Amino acid sequence: MKIILTGAGGFVGRHLARRLLARGPNGGWMDGGRVEQLVLADLEPPAFDDIRVRRVTGDLSDAAVRARLVADGADMLFHLAALPGGAAARDPALSRKVNLDGTLDLIEAMAAAHGGRTSPPRVIYTSTIAVLGHPMPALVDDATPLRPAMTYGAHKLMVEVALADYRRQGLVDPVAIRLSGILARPGGATGLKSAFMSDVFHALAAGRPYICPVSPAATLWAMSLDRCVDNLLHAASVDSALMPAGGAVTLPALCVSMGELIAAIACRLGADASLVTHVPDGTLEAAFGAHPPLLTPAAEAAGFRHDGTLDALVESALATL
Amino acid sequence: MKIILTGAGGFVGRHLARRLLARGPNGGWMDGGRVEQLVLADLEPPAFDDIRVRRVTGDLSDAAVRARLVADGADMLFHLAALPGGAAARDPALSRKVNLDGTLDLIEAMAAAHGGRTSPPRVIYTSTIAVLGHPMPALVDDATPLRPAMTYGAHKLMVEVALADYRRQGLVDPVAIRLSGILARPGGATGLKSAFMSDVFHALAAGRPYICPVSPAATLWAMSLDRCVDNLLHAASVDSALMPAGGAVTLPALCVSMGELIAAIACRLGADASLVTHVPDGTLEAAFGAHPPLLTPAAEAAGFRHDGTLDALVESALATL
Repeated sequence: MKIILTGAGGFVGRHLARRLLARGPNGGWMDGGRVEQLVLADLEPPAFDDIRVRRVTGDLSDAAVRARLVADGADMLFHLAALPGGAAARDPALSRKVNLDGTLDLIEAMAAAHGGRTSPPRVIYTSTIAVLGHPMPALVDDATPLRPAMTYGAHKLMVEVALADYRRQGLVDPVAIRLSGILARPGGATGLKSAFMSDVFHALAAGRPYICPVSPAATLWAMSLDRCVDNLLHAASVDSALMPAGGAVTLPALCVSMGELIAAIACRLGADASLVTHVPDGTLEAAFGAHPPLLTPAAEAAGFRHDGTLDALVESALATL
Repeated sequence: MKIILTGAGGFVGRHLARRLLARGPNGGWMDGGRVEQLVLADLEPPAFDDIRVRRVTGDLSDAAVRARLVADGADMLFHLAALPGGAAARDPALSRKVNLDGTLDLIEAMAAAHGGRTSPPRVIYTSTIAVLGHPMPALVDDATPLRPAMTYGAHKLMVEVALADYRRQGLVDPVAIRLSGILARPGGATGLKSAFMSDVFHALAAGRPYICPVSPAATLWAMSLDRCVDNLLHAASVDSALMPAGGAVTLPALCVSMGELIAAIACRLGADASLVTHVPDGTLEAAFGAHPPLLTPAAEAAGFRHDGTLDALVESALATL
């Protein structure tokens, strides 16, 4: 099996690449499938000492780079590459180029390169809860209308719609999964407005004071990095007949308050929770700290899972810090 | 006021152009607005003996044509040009070029040309009930999920999402209205799978036998051409604060059975309804003849209207035959 992974140099991409390679031949990966080639694409794809890895360096909005990437086709594409939300808001034209046009071009090129093989290639697309928009209703479930409030979410939703149409056309076999906050991302500026969720892990682990830009009562949806990759790997093999009509699901996530999260991290680390003080930014709290209870029956019926408990989430997140 | 109208050579476009010009200066058109220039764009834009009309001939997926069209900006764009549903299904790549990429490029060019004027230009976008997909639920209202089942509907929905984002960015002031079947289109092949709704008018008016490809029990949503143009003109001046969150509304339409429609046409014409026989095509009936009751409170609250009664619809449609 040949797999292409875009955004391979990113936080989730690197971890997914490692997990894909670690499973090894016949290591339970799909029905007897084995990773024969893993094509890692990014501006700076990570290096692995593994003969199955091919690196493609470049910008996916460049047609020549896309052509190199899909040359000879592939069985599967994990499309993680994206211009993140904050950067997309600052440059909507670049977001259109990368998150919309370049993404559609890549998937169409992938389908064309696949040519006469028996079944269309699986495409796993990382969408986002930003397709829901904000303010959110009192409860979010699979029937909640999708009204993105940021360019990033708008482009992600447009690709979801296109993927459902590509599936109908038989071009690809897509699975779109909407990610919540992934814990814990590396510290420092990442262009993600939700970085505070991760920064608090790094601060408490280092025993540093941290000024949190949302209140203790702020609520967020979160999953650990390992759980996120578990869900990506599940998306690779899930029967698409189990997916709902639109082909996209909001992944299960734990809905936790910032105060609960800080207490759980401090408890597990034996750290002092009072290192964290709160200076809420109203705009940020409204967009990223006002998440209502989340019900995801469609994703659960298709076999996707959250971390189970807040403590399990924190333990898993700390293990990959 | 300078207005651009794309798809001006089409069935609805020609009628809209005529109505825009007929209102004349200060003829009740918006708040004291007058049509100073009307730019008609199409592969074959219609000719009018009116010094306010400028014609732009060409394909909107050509950047040079778009640049000529929006040169010096405009106050308003009616974007009616589209590759119709049947043609889009036969050539999804062309549909992407025209119905998605070219449409976004045109609207972005319009916004850029508008430059430093006080308020963003109004964009009236003709979307379609094909964004709903099929099979439809037992009743359709403003909360019905949008799951297009054809490439045409997918691209129209993607543009709706983009327009809401353009509005948020302040680039344009969009109003997207979803059209049902417009009666009665000219006879003959038009690339529209729903042509049968109109063909029956022409057949009965000419006293010709007609083999209808859906059963008498088939149900459809319809509005007359004049009512459609009334709604387009209303969209030009409606307060966007009255529009729902997503910025797009399904227009009110009468839900009628094919049998009722045939009887009403025959009655008004004094024609013989038995000229029509039925040889239903299951696929066509499922896609275009299985419309449930339709509730459109959002559009009605914003001032959009259907024809009122089936007889009024038939009278209006026959008047523009």
